[in-house]
Amino acid sequence: MNSAVVLISGGMDSTVLLHHLVKDLGRRPIRAISFNYGQRHARELICAEYQAGLVNAADYRVIDLRFFGGLVSAGTALVEGGGEVPDMDSLHASQLAQPPTYVPNRNMMLLSIAAAYAEAQGIRDVYYGAQAHDEYGYWDCTADFLDRINRVLALNRRDPVSIHAPLIGKRKAELVAMGGRLAVDFANTWSCYRGGEVACGTCPTCVERLKAFAEAGVPDPLPYASLE
Amino acid sequence: MNSAVVLISGGMDSTVLLHHLVKDLGRRPIRAISFNYGQRHARELICAEYQAGLVNAADYRVIDLRFFGGLVSAGTALVEGGGEVPDMDSLHASQLAQPPTYVPNRNMMLLSIAAAYAEAQGIRDVYYGAQAHDEYGYWDCTADFLDRINRVLALNRRDPVSIHAPLIGKRKAELVAMGGRLAVDFANTWSCYRGGEVACGTCPTCVERLKAFAEAGVPDPLPYASLE
Repeated sequence: MNSAVVLISGGMDSTVLLHHLVKDLGRRPIRAISFNYGQRHARELICAEYQAGLVNAADYRVIDLRFFGGLVSAGTALVEGGGEVPDMDSLHASQLAQPPTYVPNRNMMLLSIAAAYAEAQGIRDVYYGAQAHDEYGYWDCTADFLDRINRVLALNRRDPVSIHAPLIGKRKAELVAMGGRLAVDFANTWSCYRGGEVACGTCPTCVERLKAFAEAGVPDPLPYASLE
Repeated sequence: MNSAVVLISGGMDSTVLLHHLVKDLGRRPIRAISFNYGQRHARELICAEYQAGLVNAADYRVIDLRFFGGLVSAGTALVEGGGEVPDMDSLHASQLAQPPTYVPNRNMMLLSIAAAYAEAQGIRDVYYGAQAHDEYGYWDCTADFLDRINRVLALNRRDPVSIHAPLIGKRKAELVAMGGRLAVDFANTWSCYRGGEVACGTCPTCVERLKAFAEAGVPDPLPYASLE
């Protein structure tokens, strides 16, 4: 049976995706991959590995792209050596379309690598956890982006790979609810961009996550420094 | 003045491109980059560094992607650990659209990384040496591919990067002629996919290169094992 490649970061979106796919793909083996691209919150990878283990992924690997953080640190706050991660409430409205936590062209690179890996293994389907950000945005998490990436890949003259992002239209609160139905262990997911011992609760992704759990009426099992 | 990022492999196409751009871009600084993706012919990188030095590139770096060779070796003959590089005359006509020397989704990945680097540096233009292969083809060297990659990048909400491939319509013999006009030192370019001490003369790129020089009426300064 044809395998599927699934990108997991250890964050809540791709974790919900992973558990969704385990049900949705039936017995198709899942090859999960994560990337260490020098992100400040590389501790998310511990959660990724844990979740891959929970679903008995046929394969799990972390691809070491730490060179990439050094290459783009001048243009992002998300990697070691980059600018400081801002608090969500310090962002100006004009920054929300592409906040400082955007990583230059990261997703195109990650999907390229995942598609290459899939193609070499004779796998046709790659899944990633893009979803509709509620509080800010990234162009490389949009349906347009997905569509255009697939138009590139479709040019392959032998067995093109397709990228799928089944959560792309979903808001974060919907993912919390979906995760609840799938019994996702959210205590073993990591979001905080600052990557400290405890989630900060004030960076853009912590704020978005906390709002999503509140909107879904579900308690977030993670402790937050801002709530102590 | 805005810099340009130029991908150079050490092969004849990107070397001609580099020397062409030095003239064409006037005083705009050139940041040259190469990739070690586990290719059998990594010795091409010695030529790339030499050529970057010849044109006084403002920056030259080799990005270490050797992990990639391992990731895709099941699907290509071009990397260490992959299948054997075939002789050109052993290829069946049905293989010419995508021969075994094609590397799964390599160019999309390399361009993604180059675009990320450019974006982080505030650079808008990335150049690569795609040209019209005469003897066989790669979908990720076509004008369609370039166009579709640029449609992805155009979605960026701040200062999109563009990829340019000014040689994309040119046949190899035209590049030899163009290189001649630019006084390109072809003795310090490397093509042979097998990557041995001396170019083999029989692999697809050696055959294509030899035909191109012959068609242009210029002697290829490289020695070839097949011609000894």
